Amino acid sequence: MQTEKPILYNYFRSSSSWRVRIALELKKIDYEYKPISLIKDGGEQYSEEYTKINPKQEVPALYIDGQLLLQSLPIIEYLDETRPNEYELLPKDPAKRAKARMIAEIINSGMQPFQNLNVIRRVAKETQSEDKKQEWIKFYLTKGFKAVEDILKDTSGKYCIDNQITIADLCLVPQVYSAKRFNIDMIGFPNVKRVNEELEKVPEFVRAHAHHQIDTPQELKEN
Amino acid sequence: MQTEKPILYNYFRSSSSWRVRIALELKKIDYEYKPISLIKDGGEQYSEEYTKINPKQEVPALYIDGQLLLQSLPIIEYLDETRPNEYELLPKDPAKRAKARMIAEIINSGMQPFQNLNVIRRVAKETQSEDKKQEWIKFYLTKGFKAVEDILKDTSGKYCIDNQITIADLCLVPQVYSAKRFNIDMIGFPNVKRVNEELEKVPEFVRAHAHHQIDTPQELKEN
Repeated sequence: MQTEKPILYNYFRSSSSWRVRIALELKKIDYEYKPISLIKDGGEQYSEEYTKINPKQEVPALYIDGQLLLQSLPIIEYLDETRPNEYELLPKDPAKRAKARMIAEIINSGMQPFQNLNVIRRVAKETQSEDKKQEWIKFYLTKGFKAVEDILKDTSGKYCIDNQITIADLCLVPQVYSAKRFNIDMIGFPNVKRVNEELEKVPEFVRAHAHHQIDTPQELKEN
Repeated sequence: MQTEKPILYNYFRSSSSWRVRIALELKKIDYEYKPISLIKDGGEQYSEEYTKINPKQEVPALYIDGQLLLQSLPIIEYLDETRPNEYELLPKDPAKRAKARMIAEIINSGMQPFQNLNVIRRVAKETQSEDKKQEWIKFYLTKGFKAVEDILKDTSGKYCIDNQITIADLCLVPQVYSAKRFNIDMIGFPNVKRVNEELEKVPEFVRAHAHHQIDTPQELKEN
């Protein structure tokens, strides 16, 4: 099936890019990393060249099996369906699959859109206020973490769903990192915190971390 | 498996509720319709009673098989996995499954969050401007439809993916309805328009329509 090396168009700090990097690591897929800076020159995702590749002008985009796939969750489901290995990113039990997808979706559609760089720039511009922007981010991230925490109380073991790494975990780690950047108080979310700390130790999660990519700025790189 | 009748907590005009209603119709599942008005008394989703049922204070929520499921796309995937019938809401081919999920996700995480009632109220309040609110909605919906249209050029037959009704179609119809409410010009999206018109004829889609529910206001009801 796989003749060419897959290409991941992504950005070190983009949380949805990061989710796909973890999936590629867990699935042991060798891929070409093409950095698309969301900052440089007003955003390289708007360049003519990248717009031809991905008209939605967003990262991530994964070129694999002769086609370009967009949207992190569908990409992860595709990798799980076409590259079965010891990491099954969706549990076998339908109720647990649903719970894993619920956590992933609360983060993907209930939190990430509201911290998206373009969205928060727009909020800051329209309100003419950095404080309003910060309030906006805090409101949606806190709301989302409350919902995730509430599910984790019932579902979590070592990871979000029992002791199996799932699509929910791939979303959780980048989201907690973003929350720290935006100074969100995590004290009310002990299960989120605990699971995140466990996941941060997993070698595949370490390799996919925002601070360990070729486009990570020198000052953020960890040894 | 199913001993009690499933309960759908939902609102006639909520686009994510509507997606689940279509899935329930296609899967021929008899369910109890519990209206949660997003308007009445400042929003019934914030009531103490509903918060106990769903702490995320959102619709839809589906009580089924002894558990409460949240988030429309995970609910639809669960129904498809546990209630196989002649309507397979995800195609068999992994690449086509990915395309169906991509369309669903562009709508779910790239469009719907930005027209969500609470979000647009917040935008109107912070900017003190109804025009800014309208601009905001137009920006995100147009961006999303462009991306969907671009995919449909390659994937669509009678419906979003060939001639099979999929999760993508369940998202498309309520989104086009919302776009009309917000006066979005659909002229640049001929494939979206064509597929939507086909889907509107399907009896299960007709029964799930916002204008045909028990909580639809009299003035919107069609005969």
